[in-house]
Amino acid sequence: MKKYKCLVSYDGTNFAGFQIQKNAPTIQEILQKAFAKRFQKYIEITGASRTDAGVHALGQVIHFSLEEIKDFDHFLHQLNCILPKEIRLISIEEVSENFHSRYCAVKKTYYYFLSTGKYLSPFDRLYHVHVSPKIDISLMKEASKVFIGTHDFRAFAHQADKGCAKNKPIKTIYRFDWTPISDGYRIEIEGNGFLHKMVRNLVGLLIDVGMKTIPLEKINQILASCDRKQAGQTAPAHGLFLAKIDY
Amino acid sequence: MKKYKCLVSYDGTNFAGFQIQKNAPTIQEILQKAFAKRFQKYIEITGASRTDAGVHALGQVIHFSLEEIKDFDHFLHQLNCILPKEIRLISIEEVSENFHSRYCAVKKTYYYFLSTGKYLSPFDRLYHVHVSPKIDISLMKEASKVFIGTHDFRAFAHQADKGCAKNKPIKTIYRFDWTPISDGYRIEIEGNGFLHKMVRNLVGLLIDVGMKTIPLEKINQILASCDRKQAGQTAPAHGLFLAKIDY
Repeated sequence: MKKYKCLVSYDGTNFAGFQIQKNAPTIQEILQKAFAKRFQKYIEITGASRTDAGVHALGQVIHFSLEEIKDFDHFLHQLNCILPKEIRLISIEEVSENFHSRYCAVKKTYYYFLSTGKYLSPFDRLYHVHVSPKIDISLMKEASKVFIGTHDFRAFAHQADKGCAKNKPIKTIYRFDWTPISDGYRIEIEGNGFLHKMVRNLVGLLIDVGMKTIPLEKINQILASCDRKQAGQTAPAHGLFLAKIDY
Repeated sequence: MKKYKCLVSYDGTNFAGFQIQKNAPTIQEILQKAFAKRFQKYIEITGASRTDAGVHALGQVIHFSLEEIKDFDHFLHQLNCILPKEIRLISIEEVSENFHSRYCAVKKTYYYFLSTGKYLSPFDRLYHVHVSPKIDISLMKEASKVFIGTHDFRAFAHQADKGCAKNKPIKTIYRFDWTPISDGYRIEIEGNGFLHKMVRNLVGLLIDVGMKTIPLEKINQILASCDRKQAGQTAPAHGLFLAKIDY
Protein backbone atom coordinates (compact mmCIF):
# COMPACT_ATOMS: atom_id res chain seq x y z
CA MET A 1 0.00 0.00 0.00
CA LYS A 2 1.11 3.54 -0.75
CA LYS A 3 -0.01 6.81 0.79
CA TYR A 4 -1.27 9.65 -1.39
CA LYS A 5 -2.03 13.32 -0.91
CA CYS A 6 -4.60 14.96 -3.16
CA LEU A 7 -5.64 18.58 -3.72
CA VAL A 8 -9.42 19.02 -3.94
CA SER A 9 -11.56 21.98 -5.01
CA TYR A 10 -15.28 22.14 -4.34
CA ASP A 11 -18.32 24.36 -4.43
CA GLY A 12 -19.81 23.86 -0.96
CA THR A 13 -23.23 25.34 -1.77
CA ASN A 14 -25.14 22.08 -1.82
CA PHE A 15 -23.18 20.20 0.82
CA ALA A 16 -23.40 19.95 4.59
CA GLY A 17 -19.66 20.55 4.93
CA PHE A 18 -16.68 18.27 4.47
CA GLN A 19 -17.05 15.72 7.24
CA ILE A 20 -19.33 12.72 6.86
CA GLN A 21 -22.75 13.02 8.53
CA LYS A 22 -25.92 11.04 8.87
CA ASN A 23 -28.76 12.21 6.59
CA ALA A 24 -26.88 15.03 4.83
CA PRO A 25 -24.61 14.99 1.76
CA THR A 26 -20.99 15.87 2.52
CA ILE A 27 -17.80 16.17 0.50
CA GLN A 28 -16.10 13.30 2.35
CA GLU A 29 -19.06 11.00 1.67
CA ILE A 30 -19.19 11.86 -2.06
CA LEU A 31 -15.42 11.35 -2.36
CA GLN A 32 -15.54 8.00 -0.55
CA LYS A 33 -18.45 6.85 -2.73
CA ALA A 34 -16.52 7.81 -5.88
CA PHE A 35 -13.42 5.94 -4.68
CA ALA A 36 -15.57 2.92 -3.76
CA LYS A 37 -17.13 2.94 -7.23
CA ARG A 38 -13.73 3.12 -8.92
CA PHE A 39 -11.86 0.60 -6.71
CA GLN A 40 -14.77 -1.61 -5.58
CA LYS A 41 -13.86 -1.28 -1.90
CA TYR A 42 -14.09 1.16 1.00
CA ILE A 43 -11.21 3.66 1.06
CA GLU A 44 -10.99 6.04 3.99
CA ILE A 45 -10.51 9.68 2.90
CA THR A 46 -9.11 12.05 5.53
CA GLY A 47 -9.38 15.79 4.97
CA ALA A 48 -7.10 18.48 6.35
CA SER A 49 -9.93 20.81 7.24
CA ARG A 50 -13.53 20.09 8.25
CA THR A 51 -15.05 22.95 6.29
CA ASP A 52 -18.57 23.91 7.43
CA ALA A 53 -21.79 23.61 5.44
CA GLY A 54 -21.74 26.03 2.50
CA VAL A 55 -18.00 26.78 2.71
CA HIS A 56 -16.01 26.33 -0.52
CA ALA A 57 -12.49 25.06 -1.18
CA LEU A 58 -9.86 25.91 -3.77
CA GLY A 59 -7.18 23.79 -2.10
CA GLN A 60 -8.54 21.31 0.44
CA VAL A 61 -6.03 18.50 1.06
CA ILE A 62 -6.98 14.85 1.56
CA HIS A 63 -4.93 11.72 2.13
CA PHE A 64 -5.68 8.04 1.61
CA SER A 65 -3.90 4.71 1.24
CA LEU A 66 -4.12 2.63 -1.93
CA GLU A 67 -2.23 0.16 -4.06
CA GLU A 68 0.31 1.86 -6.30
CA ILE A 69 -1.22 4.35 -8.75
CA LYS A 70 0.67 4.04 -12.01
CA ASP A 71 -0.73 6.96 -14.00
CA PHE A 72 -1.68 10.05 -11.99
CA ASP A 73 -3.41 11.90 -14.86
CA HIS A 74 -5.49 8.84 -15.66
CA PHE A 75 -6.39 8.44 -11.97
CA LEU A 76 -7.53 12.08 -11.67
CA HIS A 77 -9.49 11.88 -14.91
CA GLN A 78 -11.29 8.69 -13.89
CA LEU A 79 -12.28 9.99 -10.45
CA ASN A 80 -13.38 13.37 -11.86
CA CYS A 81 -15.63 11.53 -14.33
CA ILE A 82 -17.38 9.82 -11.40
CA LEU A 83 -17.53 12.89 -9.12
CA PRO A 84 -20.21 15.56 -9.53
CA LYS A 85 -18.95 18.72 -11.27
CA GLU A 86 -19.05 20.55 -7.94
CA ILE A 87 -16.04 18.53 -6.71
CA ARG A 88 -12.75 18.24 -8.61
CA LEU A 89 -9.53 16.44 -7.78
CA ILE A 90 -6.83 18.83 -8.94
CA SER A 91 -3.54 17.03 -8.31
CA ILE A 92 -2.06 14.02 -6.58
CA GLU A 93 1.34 13.04 -5.22
CA GLU A 94 2.76 10.15 -3.24
CA VAL A 95 3.66 10.99 0.35
CA SER A 96 5.55 9.22 3.13
CA GLU A 97 3.77 6.76 5.42
CA ASN A 98 3.69 9.25 8.31
CA PHE A 99 2.01 12.07 6.37
CA HIS A 100 -1.37 13.17 7.76
CA SER A 101 -3.35 15.88 5.95
CA ARG A 102 -4.67 17.38 9.19
CA TYR A 103 -1.89 16.88 11.74
CA CYS A 104 1.01 17.77 9.45
CA ALA A 105 -0.50 21.07 8.23
CA VAL A 106 1.59 24.04 9.37
CA LYS A 107 -0.23 26.93 7.69
CA LYS A 108 -3.68 27.55 6.22
CA THR A 109 -4.92 30.34 3.98
CA TYR A 110 -8.56 31.34 3.73
CA TYR A 111 -10.22 33.80 1.36
CA TYR A 112 -13.37 35.70 2.16
CA PHE A 113 -15.11 37.58 -0.67
CA LEU A 114 -17.00 40.79 0.05
CA SER A 115 -18.97 42.58 -2.65
CA THR A 116 -19.43 46.30 -1.99
CA GLY A 117 -21.17 47.18 -5.25
CA LYS A 118 -24.65 48.63 -5.64
CA TYR A 119 -25.92 45.14 -6.38
CA LEU A 120 -24.47 41.64 -6.19
CA SER A 121 -23.79 40.08 -9.59
CA PRO A 122 -25.99 37.00 -10.21
CA PHE A 123 -22.77 35.14 -11.03
CA ASP A 124 -21.20 35.92 -7.64
CA ARG A 125 -24.30 35.27 -5.57
CA LEU A 126 -23.10 31.85 -4.38
CA TYR A 127 -19.53 32.97 -3.66
CA HIS A 128 -19.50 36.60 -2.49
CA VAL A 129 -21.23 38.23 0.45
CA HIS A 130 -22.89 41.52 -0.38
CA VAL A 131 -22.45 44.37 2.08
CA SER A 132 -23.70 47.94 1.85
CA PRO A 133 -21.68 50.14 -0.56
CA LYS A 134 -21.60 52.59 2.36
CA ILE A 135 -19.50 50.23 4.51
CA ASP A 136 -16.25 51.83 5.71
CA ILE A 137 -13.51 49.58 4.33
CA SER A 138 -10.66 51.69 5.76
CA LEU A 139 -12.05 51.13 9.27
CA MET A 140 -12.28 47.39 8.57
CA LYS A 141 -8.68 47.29 7.30
CA GLU A 142 -7.53 49.12 10.42
CA ALA A 143 -9.46 46.72 12.68
CA SER A 144 -8.09 43.65 10.91
CA LYS A 145 -4.51 44.67 11.78
CA VAL A 146 -5.33 43.98 15.44
CA PHE A 147 -5.75 40.27 14.63
CA ILE A 148 -2.28 39.84 13.09
CA GLY A 149 0.14 38.09 15.43
CA THR A 150 -0.27 35.53 18.22
CA HIS A 151 -3.43 35.81 20.30
CA ASP A 152 -5.91 33.80 22.34
CA PHE A 153 -8.78 33.76 19.83
CA ARG A 154 -11.53 32.32 22.09
CA ALA A 155 -13.67 35.42 21.44
CA PHE A 156 -13.91 34.17 17.85
CA ALA A 157 -14.45 30.45 18.51
CA HIS A 158 -17.81 28.82 17.80
CA GLN A 159 -19.64 28.81 21.13
CA ALA A 160 -20.92 25.24 20.89
CA ASP A 161 -17.43 23.96 20.16
CA LYS A 162 -15.70 23.76 23.54
CA GLY A 163 -12.95 21.22 22.75
CA CYS A 164 -10.53 22.92 20.41
CA ALA A 165 -11.06 26.43 21.73
CA LYS A 166 -10.53 25.26 25.29
CA ASN A 167 -7.38 23.29 24.61
CA LYS A 168 -5.55 25.25 21.92
CA PRO A 169 -7.08 28.71 21.66
CA ILE A 170 -3.79 30.47 20.90
CA LYS A 171 -3.21 30.89 17.17
CA THR A 172 -0.95 33.03 15.04
CA ILE A 173 -2.26 35.04 12.10
CA TYR A 174 0.59 35.89 9.71
CA ARG A 175 -1.31 37.87 7.14
CA PHE A 176 -4.67 39.64 6.85
CA ASP A 177 -4.69 41.25 3.39
CA TRP A 178 -7.33 43.10 1.42
CA THR A 179 -7.02 42.54 -2.33
CA PRO A 180 -9.34 44.71 -4.46
CA ILE A 181 -11.45 42.73 -6.95
CA SER A 182 -13.89 44.05 -9.56
CA ASP A 183 -16.82 44.59 -7.20
CA GLY A 184 -15.22 44.55 -3.75
CA TYR A 185 -12.46 42.77 -1.87
CA ARG A 186 -10.88 39.38 -1.43
CA ILE A 187 -9.77 39.15 2.19
CA GLU A 188 -6.80 36.79 2.51
CA ILE A 189 -6.09 35.37 5.96
CA GLU A 190 -3.05 33.21 6.61
CA GLY A 191 -2.40 31.54 9.96
CA ASN A 192 -0.91 28.51 11.66
CA GLY A 193 -4.37 27.27 12.63
CA PHE A 194 -7.95 28.41 13.08
CA LEU A 195 -10.64 27.69 15.67
CA HIS A 196 -14.05 26.46 14.49
CA LYS A 197 -15.81 29.33 12.62
CA MET A 198 -12.96 31.70 13.54
CA VAL A 199 -12.58 33.29 10.09
CA ARG A 200 -16.32 33.91 9.74
CA ASN A 201 -16.42 35.37 13.26
CA LEU A 202 -13.45 37.66 12.53
CA VAL A 203 -15.03 38.85 9.26
CA GLY A 204 -18.40 39.22 11.01
CA LEU A 205 -16.89 41.57 13.57
CA LEU A 206 -15.16 43.53 10.81
CA ILE A 207 -18.52 43.99 9.06
CA ASP A 208 -19.92 45.34 12.36
CA VAL A 209 -16.97 47.74 12.53
CA GLY A 210 -17.41 48.80 8.89
CA MET A 211 -21.12 49.44 9.48
CA LYS A 212 -20.21 51.32 12.69
CA THR A 213 -22.31 49.16 14.99
CA ILE A 214 -19.13 48.25 16.90
CA PRO A 215 -16.43 50.94 17.31
CA LEU A 216 -12.88 50.29 16.11
CA GLU A 217 -11.59 51.17 19.58
CA LYS A 218 -13.35 48.13 21.08
CA ILE A 219 -11.51 45.51 18.98
CA ASN A 220 -8.54 45.12 21.36
CA GLN A 221 -10.90 44.77 24.30
CA ILE A 222 -13.08 42.18 22.50
CA LEU A 223 -10.04 40.11 21.55
CA ALA A 224 -8.71 40.28 25.13
CA SER A 225 -12.10 39.33 26.64
CA CYS A 226 -11.93 35.80 25.18
CA ASP A 227 -15.73 36.02 25.28
CA ARG A 228 -17.65 35.05 22.15
CA LYS A 229 -20.72 37.01 23.30
CA GLN A 230 -18.86 40.31 22.87
CA ALA A 231 -17.59 39.75 19.36
CA GLY A 232 -20.45 40.57 16.96
CA GLN A 233 -21.98 38.56 14.15
CA THR A 234 -20.83 35.47 12.24
CA ALA A 235 -20.32 36.23 8.53
CA PRO A 236 -22.21 33.91 6.11
CA ALA A 237 -20.58 30.62 5.07
CA HIS A 238 -20.82 31.15 1.32
CA GLY A 239 -18.21 33.95 1.21
CA LEU A 240 -15.53 31.67 2.67
CA PHE A 241 -12.98 29.65 0.68
CA LEU A 242 -10.33 27.32 2.07
CA ALA A 243 -7.61 28.49 -0.31
CA LYS A 244 -4.33 26.75 0.56
CA ILE A 245 -2.72 24.46 3.11
CA ASP A 246 1.03 24.39 3.64
CA TYR A 247 3.02 21.47 5.06
CA MET B 1 -47.00 57.38 -18.70
CA LYS B 2 -43.28 57.36 -19.35
CA LYS B 3 -41.16 54.80 -21.17
CA TYR B 4 -38.10 53.27 -19.51
CA LYS B 5 -35.17 51.17 -20.62
CA CYS B 6 -33.50 48.88 -18.10
CA LEU B 7 -30.30 46.83 -18.16
CA VAL B 8 -30.74 43.33 -16.72
CA SER B 9 -28.22 40.65 -15.77
CA TYR B 10 -29.20 37.06 -15.05
CA ASP B 11 -27.92 33.57 -14.46
CA GLY B 12 -29.99 31.52 -16.90
CA THR B 13 -29.18 28.12 -15.33
CA ASN B 14 -32.56 27.54 -13.75
CA PHE B 15 -34.75 29.27 -16.33
CA ALA B 16 -36.38 28.16 -19.56
CA GLY B 17 -35.06 31.24 -21.36
CA PHE B 18 -36.22 34.85 -21.44
CA GLN B 19 -39.60 34.66 -23.12
CA ILE B 20 -42.72 33.75 -21.17
CA GLN B 21 -43.86 30.13 -21.52
CA LYS B 22 -46.56 27.88 -20.16
CA ASN B 23 -45.36 25.51 -17.41
CA ALA B 24 -41.73 26.68 -17.23
CA PRO B 25 -40.12 29.54 -15.29
CA THR B 26 -38.72 32.29 -17.52
CA ILE B 27 -36.94 35.60 -16.93
CA GLN B 28 -39.78 37.65 -18.45
CA GLU B 29 -42.32 35.96 -16.18
CA ILE B 30 -40.25 36.52 -13.02
CA LEU B 31 -39.68 40.17 -13.98
CA GLN B 32 -43.38 40.75 -14.68
CA LYS B 33 -44.33 39.11 -11.38
CA ALA B 34 -41.87 41.34 -9.50
CA PHE B 35 -43.23 44.47 -11.21
CA ALA B 36 -46.80 43.34 -10.46
CA LYS B 37 -45.91 42.84 -6.80
CA ARG B 38 -44.33 46.28 -6.57
CA PHE B 39 -46.92 48.27 -8.57
CA GLN B 40 -50.03 46.11 -7.95
CA LYS B 41 -50.84 45.86 -11.65
CA TYR B 42 -49.74 44.03 -14.79
CA ILE B 43 -46.82 45.73 -16.55
CA GLU B 44 -45.65 44.34 -19.87
CA ILE B 45 -41.89 43.80 -20.02
CA THR B 46 -40.36 43.54 -23.49
CA GLY B 47 -36.86 42.15 -23.87
CA ALA B 48 -34.37 42.91 -26.64
CA SER B 49 -33.29 39.31 -27.02
CA ARG B 50 -35.17 36.04 -26.45
CA THR B 51 -32.25 34.21 -24.88
CA ASP B 52 -32.65 30.42 -24.86
CA ALA B 53 -32.99 28.13 -21.86
CA GLY B 54 -29.75 28.12 -19.87
CA VAL B 55 -28.23 31.15 -21.60
CA HIS B 56 -26.98 33.95 -19.31
CA ALA B 57 -27.05 37.73 -19.66
CA LEU B 58 -24.72 40.48 -18.52
CA GLY B 59 -26.58 43.19 -20.41
CA GLN B 60 -30.05 42.16 -21.55
CA VAL B 61 -32.19 45.25 -22.29
CA ILE B 62 -35.88 45.52 -21.43
CA HIS B 63 -38.40 48.32 -21.87
CA PHE B 64 -41.72 49.06 -20.19
CA SER B 65 -44.16 51.91 -19.62
CA LEU B 66 -44.95 53.26 -16.16
CA GLU B 67 -45.94 56.39 -14.30
CA GLU B 68 -42.97 58.67 -13.66
CA ILE B 69 -40.22 57.06 -11.56
CA LYS B 70 -38.87 59.74 -9.24
CA ASP B 71 -35.86 57.98 -7.72
CA PHE B 72 -34.03 55.52 -9.99
CA ASP B 73 -31.75 54.07 -7.26
CA HIS B 74 -34.73 53.47 -5.00
CA PHE B 75 -36.64 51.82 -7.88
CA LEU B 76 -33.75 49.45 -8.68
CA HIS B 77 -33.24 48.62 -5.01
CA GLN B 78 -36.92 47.83 -4.46
CA LEU B 79 -37.22 45.58 -7.51
CA ASN B 80 -33.94 43.80 -6.74
CA CYS B 81 -35.25 43.05 -3.23
CA ILE B 82 -38.27 41.31 -4.77
CA LEU B 83 -36.37 39.51 -7.56
CA PRO B 84 -34.45 36.26 -6.92
CA LYS B 85 -30.67 36.76 -6.64
CA GLU B 86 -30.25 35.16 -10.07
CA ILE B 87 -31.78 38.25 -11.73
CA ARG B 88 -30.56 41.82 -11.12
CA LEU B 89 -31.72 45.11 -12.58
CA ILE B 90 -28.48 47.03 -13.13
CA SER B 91 -29.53 50.44 -14.40
CA ILE B 92 -32.51 52.38 -15.72
CA GLU B 93 -33.05 55.43 -17.91
CA GLU B 94 -36.03 57.20 -19.45
CA VAL B 95 -36.34 56.79 -23.21
CA SER B 96 -38.47 58.37 -25.90
CA GLU B 97 -41.95 57.02 -26.68
CA ASN B 98 -40.76 55.32 -29.88
CA PHE B 99 -37.94 53.34 -28.27
CA HIS B 100 -38.25 49.56 -28.59
CA SER B 101 -35.66 47.29 -26.95
CA ARG B 102 -35.79 44.74 -29.77
CA TYR B 103 -36.47 46.74 -32.93
CA CYS B 104 -34.15 49.65 -32.15
CA ALA B 105 -31.11 47.46 -31.39
CA VAL B 106 -28.33 48.01 -33.94
CA LYS B 107 -25.58 45.80 -32.51
CA LYS B 108 -25.32 42.87 -30.12
CA THR B 109 -22.30 41.37 -28.41
CA TYR B 110 -22.20 37.80 -27.12
CA TYR B 111 -19.54 36.08 -25.04
CA TYR B 112 -18.86 32.37 -25.12
CA PHE B 113 -16.59 30.89 -22.44
CA LEU B 114 -14.41 27.89 -23.24
CA SER B 115 -12.30 26.20 -20.60
CA THR B 116 -9.30 24.33 -21.97
CA GLY B 117 -7.76 23.31 -18.65
CA LYS B 118 -7.15 19.77 -17.42
CA TYR B 119 -10.34 20.01 -15.40
CA LEU B 120 -13.22 22.49 -15.19
CA SER B 121 -13.22 24.54 -11.98
CA PRO B 122 -16.32 23.80 -9.83
CA PHE B 123 -16.91 27.57 -9.77
CA ASP B 124 -17.05 27.82 -13.57
CA ARG B 125 -19.14 24.70 -14.14
CA LEU B 126 -22.35 26.65 -14.75
CA TYR B 127 -20.73 29.30 -16.98
CA HIS B 128 -17.88 27.76 -18.97
CA VAL B 129 -17.89 24.85 -21.40
CA HIS B 130 -15.02 22.43 -20.93
CA VAL B 131 -13.23 21.20 -24.02
CA SER B 132 -10.23 18.90 -24.29
CA PRO B 133 -6.89 20.57 -23.43
CA LYS B 134 -5.72 19.03 -26.73
CA ILE B 135 -8.11 21.19 -28.79
CA ASP B 136 -6.31 23.25 -31.45
CA ILE B 137 -7.18 26.87 -30.63
CA SER B 138 -5.10 28.32 -33.48
CA LEU B 139 -7.20 26.35 -35.98
CA MET B 140 -10.38 27.63 -34.29
CA LYS B 141 -9.14 31.24 -34.43
CA GLU B 142 -8.34 30.81 -38.11
CA ALA B 143 -11.78 29.32 -38.81
CA SER B 144 -13.59 32.08 -36.91
CA LYS B 145 -12.11 34.71 -39.27
CA VAL B 146 -14.25 33.26 -42.07
CA PHE B 147 -17.39 34.40 -40.22
CA ILE B 148 -16.39 38.06 -39.99
CA GLY B 149 -18.21 40.23 -42.51
CA THR B 150 -21.63 40.04 -44.18
CA HIS B 151 -22.89 36.54 -44.99
CA ASP B 152 -26.02 34.46 -45.38
CA PHE B 153 -25.87 32.55 -42.10
CA ARG B 154 -28.63 29.99 -42.75
CA ALA B 155 -26.12 27.14 -42.22
CA PHE B 156 -26.03 28.30 -38.58
CA ALA B 157 -29.73 28.93 -37.99
CA HIS B 158 -31.78 26.68 -35.73
CA GLN B 159 -33.45 24.14 -38.05
CA ALA B 160 -36.88 24.30 -36.44
CA ASP B 161 -36.92 28.09 -36.72
CA LYS B 162 -37.90 28.83 -40.29
CA GLY B 163 -39.22 32.39 -39.96
CA CYS B 164 -36.25 34.59 -39.15
CA ALA B 165 -33.69 32.55 -41.05
CA LYS B 166 -35.93 32.49 -44.12
CA ASN B 167 -36.67 36.19 -44.14
CA LYS B 168 -33.50 37.87 -42.92
CA PRO B 169 -30.65 35.35 -43.03
CA ILE B 170 -28.01 37.92 -44.00
CA LYS B 171 -26.15 39.27 -40.99
CA THR B 172 -22.89 41.12 -40.45
CA ILE B 173 -20.34 40.01 -37.85
CA TYR B 174 -18.03 42.91 -36.97
CA ARG B 175 -15.78 41.18 -34.50
CA PHE B 176 -14.90 37.61 -33.49
CA ASP B 177 -12.22 37.95 -30.80
CA TRP B 178 -10.48 35.44 -28.56
CA THR B 179 -9.56 36.90 -25.16
CA PRO B 180 -7.40 34.61 -22.99
CA ILE B 181 -8.80 34.06 -19.48
CA SER B 182 -7.27 32.09 -16.60
CA ASP B 183 -8.34 28.63 -17.82
CA GLY B 184 -9.22 29.18 -21.46
CA TYR B 185 -10.84 31.80 -23.69
CA ARG B 186 -13.67 34.27 -23.76
CA ILE B 187 -14.91 34.41 -27.34
CA GLU B 188 -16.43 37.82 -28.09
CA ILE B 189 -18.78 38.05 -31.06
CA GLU B 190 -20.21 41.36 -32.18
CA GLY B 191 -22.78 41.65 -34.96
CA ASN B 192 -25.75 43.61 -36.25
CA GLY B 193 -28.05 40.66 -35.55
CA PHE B 194 -28.06 36.92 -34.96
CA LEU B 195 -30.29 34.07 -36.10
CA HIS B 196 -31.79 31.73 -33.52
CA LYS B 197 -28.96 29.63 -31.95
CA MET B 198 -26.48 31.15 -34.42
CA VAL B 199 -23.71 31.85 -31.87
CA ARG B 200 -23.93 28.35 -30.38
CA ASN B 201 -23.90 26.83 -33.86
CA LEU B 202 -20.86 28.89 -34.90
CA VAL B 203 -18.99 27.93 -31.70
CA GLY B 204 -20.10 24.31 -32.15
CA LEU B 205 -18.54 24.17 -35.60
CA LEU B 206 -15.36 25.79 -34.25
CA ILE B 207 -15.14 23.06 -31.60
CA ASP B 208 -15.43 20.47 -34.38
CA VAL B 209 -12.62 22.24 -36.25
CA GLY B 210 -10.46 22.44 -33.10
CA MET B 211 -10.99 18.71 -32.45
CA LYS B 212 -10.24 18.04 -36.14
CA THR B 213 -13.52 16.28 -36.88
CA ILE B 214 -14.26 18.97 -39.51
CA PRO B 215 -11.32 20.37 -41.54
CA LEU B 216 -10.61 24.11 -41.57
CA GLU B 217 -10.76 24.05 -45.38
CA LYS B 218 -14.46 23.12 -45.31
CA ILE B 219 -15.63 26.25 -43.40
CA ASN B 220 -16.12 28.44 -46.48
CA GLN B 221 -18.05 25.67 -48.20
CA ILE B 222 -20.27 25.06 -45.14
CA LEU B 223 -21.06 28.76 -44.83
CA ALA B 224 -21.86 28.96 -48.57
CA SER B 225 -24.08 25.84 -48.43
CA CYS B 226 -26.71 27.61 -46.27
CA ASP B 227 -27.46 24.08 -45.06
CA ARG B 228 -27.68 23.51 -41.31
CA LYS B 229 -27.06 19.77 -41.73
CA GLN B 230 -23.49 20.40 -42.89
CA ALA B 231 -22.42 22.67 -40.06
CA GLY B 232 -21.53 20.45 -37.09
CA GLN B 233 -22.70 20.48 -33.50
CA THR B 234 -24.51 23.09 -31.40
CA ALA B 235 -22.37 24.25 -28.45
CA PRO B 236 -24.05 24.01 -25.00
CA ALA B 237 -26.25 26.87 -23.80
CA HIS B 238 -24.47 27.46 -20.47
CA GLY B 239 -21.28 28.86 -22.04
CA LEU B 240 -23.21 31.69 -23.74
CA PHE B 241 -23.70 35.20 -22.36
CA LEU B 242 -25.66 38.04 -23.96
CA ALA B 243 -23.08 40.71 -23.11
CA LYS B 244 -24.17 44.03 -24.62
CA ILE B 245 -26.76 45.61 -26.88
CA ASP B 246 -26.12 48.88 -28.69
CA TYR B 247 -28.78 51.32 -29.92
